[in-house]
Formats: sequence, structure tokens, C-alpha cells
Amino acid sequence: MAQSKRLSAGIVRNNRQMSDGRTIRYYDTTNQSRNAPDLRPVEAQPPIGELRFDALVNEWVAMAAHRQGRIFLPPKELCPLCPTNGELLTEIPEADFEVVVFDNRSPSLRPPVGDWALPDEVGPDTDLGTAAGKCEVICFTANHGKSFKDLTPDRVRVLLEAWKDRTEELSLEPFIEHIAPFENRGEEVGVTLSHPHGQIYAYSYLPPRVEKMLAAAKTYKQSTGKNLFDEILAREIRDHERIIVRNDHWIAYVPYASRYPFEIHVAPLNPVADLAGLTEADCDAFPAIALEVMNRLDGVFGIEMAYIATWHQAPVRVGRDLLRLHWQITSVRRAPGKLKYLAGSESAMGAFIMDMRPEQSAAQLREVKL
Amino acid sequence: MAQSKRLSAGIVRNNRQMSDGRTIRYYDTTNQSRNAPDLRPVEAQPPIGELRFDALVNEWVAMAAHRQGRIFLPPKELCPLCPTNGELLTEIPEADFEVVVFDNRSPSLRPPVGDWALPDEVGPDTDLGTAAGKCEVICFTANHGKSFKDLTPDRVRVLLEAWKDRTEELSLEPFIEHIAPFENRGEEVGVTLSHPHGQIYAYSYLPPRVEKMLAAAKTYKQSTGKNLFDEILAREIRDHERIIVRNDHWIAYVPYASRYPFEIHVAPLNPVADLAGLTEADCDAFPAIALEVMNRLDGVFGIEMAYIATWHQAPVRVGRDLLRLHWQITSVRRAPGKLKYLAGSESAMGAFIMDMRPEQSAAQLREVKL
Repeated sequence: MAQSKRLSAGIVRNNRQMSDGRTIRYYDTTNQSRNAPDLRPVEAQPPIGELRFDALVNEWVAMAAHRQGRIFLPPKELCPLCPTNGELLTEIPEADFEVVVFDNRSPSLRPPVGDWALPDEVGPDTDLGTAAGKCEVICFTANHGKSFKDLTPDRVRVLLEAWKDRTEELSLEPFIEHIAPFENRGEEVGVTLSHPHGQIYAYSYLPPRVEKMLAAAKTYKQSTGKNLFDEILAREIRDHERIIVRNDHWIAYVPYASRYPFEIHVAPLNPVADLAGLTEADCDAFPAIALEVMNRLDGVFGIEMAYIATWHQAPVRVGRDLLRLHWQITSVRRAPGKLKYLAGSESAMGAFIMDMRPEQSAAQLREVKL
Repeated sequence: MAQSKRLSAGIVRNNRQMSDGRTIRYYDTTNQSRNAPDLRPVEAQPPIGELRFDALVNEWVAMAAHRQGRIFLPPKELCPLCPTNGELLTEIPEADFEVVVFDNRSPSLRPPVGDWALPDEVGPDTDLGTAAGKCEVICFTANHGKSFKDLTPDRVRVLLEAWKDRTEELSLEPFIEHIAPFENRGEEVGVTLSHPHGQIYAYSYLPPRVEKMLAAAKTYKQSTGKNLFDEILAREIRDHERIIVRNDHWIAYVPYASRYPFEIHVAPLNPVADLAGLTEADCDAFPAIALEVMNRLDGVFGIEMAYIATWHQAPVRVGRDLLRLHWQITSVRRAPGKLKYLAGSESAMGAFIMDMRPEQSAAQLREVKL
């Protein structure tokens, strides 16, 4: 049952079984014994959801009706992401932890039972399929009151190793086509648990935005022979005025055609397809730039910014040479009391209207005194 | 200057000039004299915004930096969409009105000056263009406290005639490719003025969702010879269980692959490309179904639902036989105290996760006692 694995940078992973059969993975900088048992009674796992094809726009929509009743912003003393101390048995049986990843209790996507495949032909009469995939929760720290930006560089390194490890393992599953680790922060983006954590969605289909990126990169490669993302990055470096910070291995910038009041892309200077492709040197240089970017974001207005931070990776099986790893952070906060909403133009038409020039938000981010 | 036009159903349009050169159009059931002058001092028009190409996903993003400072939820006595009565000079010089449409004072898109064209070739080095297009505001009633659902059927008929008229006129502009009339309702979707009104966005490019619908419809037509939307509608009629209401000319249903807790599509049974193609009988049958749908939506929880209601039309110059007119209403309200948020999966990946089965929300909508 127990599965121990030595990763990079002296980080060790220990897998343990939860009482309902889910797996929890402890990522530690020292070889901790992680043997605390999950003492909770066994609960039935929720059923797998539906996958429906929206023929109007050629997209899959996942339906997870069992998620309606999930827990919403519990008080700190009932937080299911804190370590287990005293009476409350949380998702993490240990009394302390560094980084843990466990299977989501109310997953939108679940591993399929038996043979599973998306239909080859899809159209207005496509029958519903099962919402295959996998959803995991990643806790950044045992400390309930912290944020990503408060983590130590060492902890961010462990976190990165956990993201890498999950990408590598999930890539081996035959039903998984794309892996997206992301963090939602703030009630403004619907966060239901305030403990610092992220999620990992592993899709059995290409998410619509990935399909678009893939199509754009393919067309560009065919007509120019070049990689689209590399050329976009080259322009950002040439334009210079939207760069926030760079080091020897990473660069952070506000993209030329941002969609949000604050949007930051963080990319490795040596292009790779996914997290698993990062070199040891890339990984060691990530914590500094990641923490600087997040501290600058909170520094702009001196408040905790709501954000969505997502790793964009190449899909597992296609476009490995076309898409590039980058970390996208978007915030809907345009001023202390004001949010950007996605209304008619953005939501119904997909046509984004920005109220701010990207050069302005890049300057604001650079001017923050850290 | 004054331009009077007789439309269908005895409705008359009168155009007037506002003090800063913008046009206001009065739509009335009787031939009113609409001669009240705009007594406000002339104000400079905001500059035209930028259009930037996001090469990563092949989409245009409009930038309208001048919109940051626009008015936000003023008290009723300062509402710029009420008729002018007494001291406050509003956007509407008359002391009363039925339906008016005027050029937006802080438009995201503006008519270009001189020759204008989108570049033929686009890529990561595309320079910024001007955000050509047109943004208009449409007021549904002079009564500040009302909603769309409180309008009389006659008033909805005038409103429909105004939407038709604007679609016809805007279609004549050489720089306009797509026209989307929509209504945002509720602070939850960022509404900045609570007076019942909608907007009309006329784009100089195909909005991303329209491009996707067009690509899907084209592929389907090529492989089957059939119209995709007609087949989608045929499935909805066959499945039956998601239909909310229908009459001789229109049908309202929750689509098979809905993305929102409440999503309703209202389509004419005789397919047409756009509002201008509706017959007199179609138009006369619309108010009843439109009002029923909106009253059912507010009836589900007995509260005013936040929603975005958008007319999807075929583009002005392409895909006229491929895309069909339909009215899409989406609400992020999933329970009285709960909203659906677009977080990591939806926002960053474009992959929607629904917490509710469309059949369930269709049943809830049908069960509302009117």
C-alpha cells in the first residue's frame, strides 16, 4: 500500500490510502514517516458524472450534479484541508504536512470503470458519455492563514515538484489527454475553502482553450516553420515594456493582448512542453520569480487579490512540439472596490473588452515596493 | 436632421441629435413629437480604443482604457437613463419615452474615421489596430423600477422592432461584421446602471464564439448537407424533456449541453439568419413567450435573477445560411445564496463544469406557477 518515491531536490513522496479508497500523497523535504491512519468512517464515493457534447460550438461540457451540496467556506476550526489535530478528522490524517495531493472528494471528473473512449464522430445526436478524468486537490501548507505568496522558496520548490510528479503520473493514464494544475484564490472567483490550496484537473478531452491554442500553433508552424509561443515570447522580450521581472531561467510579463485588468504570464526561457520537461536549474529558479510575481500582485492595491493561476501545458498525446509550458495568472480586480465582470460581450460572444492597457498594469506591477 | 421612419406594427422611429453629436432614436407606438433638445454642454467624445490580436488563441481583444472611470450604480435620482424631468439633464431629453436607442457615451467600439480594414495576415507581430465597431444603449422603458419581465407585451413588441431596425441599419455599415443585442441584468454580472436597458454591440470582427459556431456549422454542412442548428433544435423537440414552453412560432428550451445553472435558448420555429428576417407573425408571437420565460426565471427562487440575455445572429456578410437566430439567456444563480463562478476550469481552460443537470433546471422552470 505505502508507496515511497524519491524525487528531485531531495524531495520524497509517500502515498497513503484514505478510508474511502482515495489516495493521499505527502511530499516532504525530509523522509518523514507518514503513517497516521484515516480514522473516518467509509463513505460512498459520488457517482461519475456525464459528459455532453455541445454541437453548437464543438465542445464537451462536464456535468457533475453531485457537486451542488459541497461544503462552502467553513470556519477555520472545521477546515477539511487543515491537518488532523484533536477531534476533527480532516482530509489529511497527519498532524502536520508540507505539501499533500489527494483525490478530490467531489470530483467533476473521475477515472472510468472498464474500457472507455470518446466517440470518434460527434454531432447534435451524440449521446452522453461519462465524465472521465481525474480531479485532485493540492494543499500548499498546513498553515490555514497563509497564501501562496507567503510560502518559503523551499516550499514553492516542493510544490513545483509535486505538480511535476502529478503531471508525470497522470500522463501515464490511458484516459487522460490534458493536465491542468491551477489555483483559484478569493471569494470573487468562487473559492469554497480558504486554506491555501490548488487543484489538478486531468481531462479525458482537450479543453476548448487548449484546442484553440493547438489550432493556432499548428497553422503558424505550417505557414512559417516556427513555434508560435516562442515567437510570442520573442515579441514580449523585444517590446520590453510589459516585462515585470526576469531571471536566468524564467520571464514574467503582462501579455500584449491581455484579457483581464491584471494578467501575468510566467514562462521558462528554455521552452518545454510541460512541467515534467523542466530542468533542475529551471525548477530551482522558479520559487524566486513566482513569489515575486505574487507579492507584486498583492502589492498593487495593498489587498489580497482574487486570482486564477493556471499551468498551461502541452496535451499528453498531441501537439507536444507545438504548445509550451507557461503559468497564467489572471485577476478580475481592476481597482480596490471594482471587479471586471464577464458580461454580454465576453460571456455570450467570447469577445473580451479590456478597460486598461496592458502596459499600464505592467508598470503598476513593476512599481510595487517589495 | 430629424429622421422619421415608419416600421412594422405601426411603430415609428424618430432620430434626433444629442448635443455632443451622438444620435438618439425614439421608437413609439404612436407618432409622438420628439423634439425636446439636448440642453447639456458639448463634451468631447472619448478616443477610439485599440484592437490587439491575441496570437495564442487567434482572437481579437478590444482595449478601451477610457472606460475605467465610467459611472457605477448611481442613485435613482441621478440615473442617466431616466427621461429628463426637472433639473437633471439625462441621456434622454424627452420627459417620457417608450423605447430609445442611443450611441453609447463610453463605447468600447467606435466607428472608424476614414478607410479602415482588419489586416489580412495576423500573427504574433500584428500591430494594434483601432477598435472599430459601434456600441449602442437601448432603454426598455422610462420607468426606472421595472425589469424586462414587467414590460407589457406591446412594449416588448416595440423593443423587438427596435432590435430589428438597429440590426438592419448597422448591417449597412461597411466596417461592421457582426451585431449582438444583449441585456445584462444584476450586480452579479457587473451591471453599472439598474434602469432596465440593454446594449447593442456591433463588431468589426467575428466574435470568438461566433467563429466557433460558424466553424462547427460549416463542417456539419459539408459532411451531412444539413444545417447544424436545425438539427440541434430537432433533437430538443424529440427529447422533449428540456422544453419549457412553445407557441406556434417560437420554442424555449434548456439546451442539452447547458453551461450555466439556468440557461435558456429561445428560437423561432421557422429558421432565420437574423432579427431582420423575422416575419410579422414571428414578431407578434414573441412577446408572450419572452415574458413567460423571464417570469419563470424570476419565479424559480422568487428573487430577481442575474442574467445575460443575448441575441445570436448570423454574421452580416458570412455564414448567412449556416447560423440561425436565437436568444440565449444564461444565469449564474444556482441557488438563492449561491452563484456559479467561472474559475480555473472554465476561465483558464474554457472547459465548463455544470453542477446541475439541464433536465432538472428545465423542470424547475416549468413548475413555476405564473
